[in-house]
Amino acid sequence: MTNKYTIPEPSLRRLPWYLAFAKLALDRGERVLSSTHIAAGIGVEPSVVAKDLSYVNLKGRTRVGYDLQELVSYLEDYLGFKKGHRAFLFGVGNLGGALLHDRGLEQFGLDIVAGFDAKYELSGTSINHTPIHHISRFAEMQQNLHVEIGVLTVPVDKAQEMAEMMVTGGIRAIWNFTPFRIQVPETVVVQNTSIYAHLAVMYNRIEELRQK
Amino acid sequence: MTNKYTIPEPSLRRLPWYLAFAKLALDRGERVLSSTHIAAGIGVEPSVVAKDLSYVNLKGRTRVGYDLQELVSYLEDYLGFKKGHRAFLFGVGNLGGALLHDRGLEQFGLDIVAGFDAKYELSGTSINHTPIHHISRFAEMQQNLHVEIGVLTVPVDKAQEMAEMMVTGGIRAIWNFTPFRIQVPETVVVQNTSIYAHLAVMYNRIEELRQK
Repeated sequence: MTNKYTIPEPSLRRLPWYLAFAKLALDRGERVLSSTHIAAGIGVEPSVVAKDLSYVNLKGRTRVGYDLQELVSYLEDYLGFKKGHRAFLFGVGNLGGALLHDRGLEQFGLDIVAGFDAKYELSGTSINHTPIHHISRFAEMQQNLHVEIGVLTVPVDKAQEMAEMMVTGGIRAIWNFTPFRIQVPETVVVQNTSIYAHLAVMYNRIEELRQK
Repeated sequence: MTNKYTIPEPSLRRLPWYLAFAKLALDRGERVLSSTHIAAGIGVEPSVVAKDLSYVNLKGRTRVGYDLQELVSYLEDYLGFKKGHRAFLFGVGNLGGALLHDRGLEQFGLDIVAGFDAKYELSGTSINHTPIHHISRFAEMQQNLHVEIGVLTVPVDKAQEMAEMMVTGGIRAIWNFTPFRIQVPETVVVQNTSIYAHLAVMYNRIEELRQK
């Protein structure tokens, strides 16, 4: 995958950290920021910061650093947080419902235009002004809306089937919150966010530290 | 970090995938599962599966595989999803509020006993039966409750300060949902879940594929 794209995924994932850090510095009234400064604040190597930012054509000036205003606005643009990206959400259960409650997604450019669920009693309801429809309406709605992003929050035993339905309907990127590793064609973008896996790591590490 | 613990983090993070996959097979009435089978279903190398499971002392029988019932119950135990782990949530904003709406966390062993926020108007309210208190009450409540896990969902400019307050109060693991890389003593467990970083990856990849 790495070679297919201009910027490797680990680098791309670090950019929002730099953006958050740079915004704070800007809010404090600072004007320039060196990669050493960013690196120290974030806990990565300065060479990593410089390399990551070079992928997005940002170059600091020697002994001065990056112009902060430029860094912030360029990263915001590059990361796509300022544009609206329409999405459908599939599976309005615990996590799906919770995500519809999160207005933060909108602030990062994700506009969930509708939720779908197999439960008929949810059809016609809404969460935070996002309408919920029966899943059988997806194909028809998609023909008019051409939504590219699908948020996958169905139960694990429905994940693969639903992913295939999404791909058939023309969804081009799947944000998979289920612990199931869906298999889709290579041309479909998949991002796996297994929030519960992070719980397992915390439980395990606390336990191990306790035994020391 | 890797050497400090019995099982490396990437392995630990893959175990919930295996568990989800094994549970589905068990529900379909299957009795054994080979690492080749798991590997094919999940899209990783069979040797990786075997290695990961050997860390948790699970060994398959040659040419037969893992006993499914045993695999599922052992992994559930090992991952700690069956026990209740008490947690506090810091910052009842968009994402914090959404997480309190997610009953799924409970099913994975996370019991959020209270939320804290700096907004006085939130004190005394509750979300999904979880009470919200003013942040000034944390130290006092913690003295009685000795909660080990803190969920960090404050605004980015408060992340470091709040993390330090959590550590001072005896929180041993921080689940950081902010894009700020908090700096804490080495003995404190940190798990970073930057859900918005996944959005940046999706936006970028869709755009790049469009240009091909």
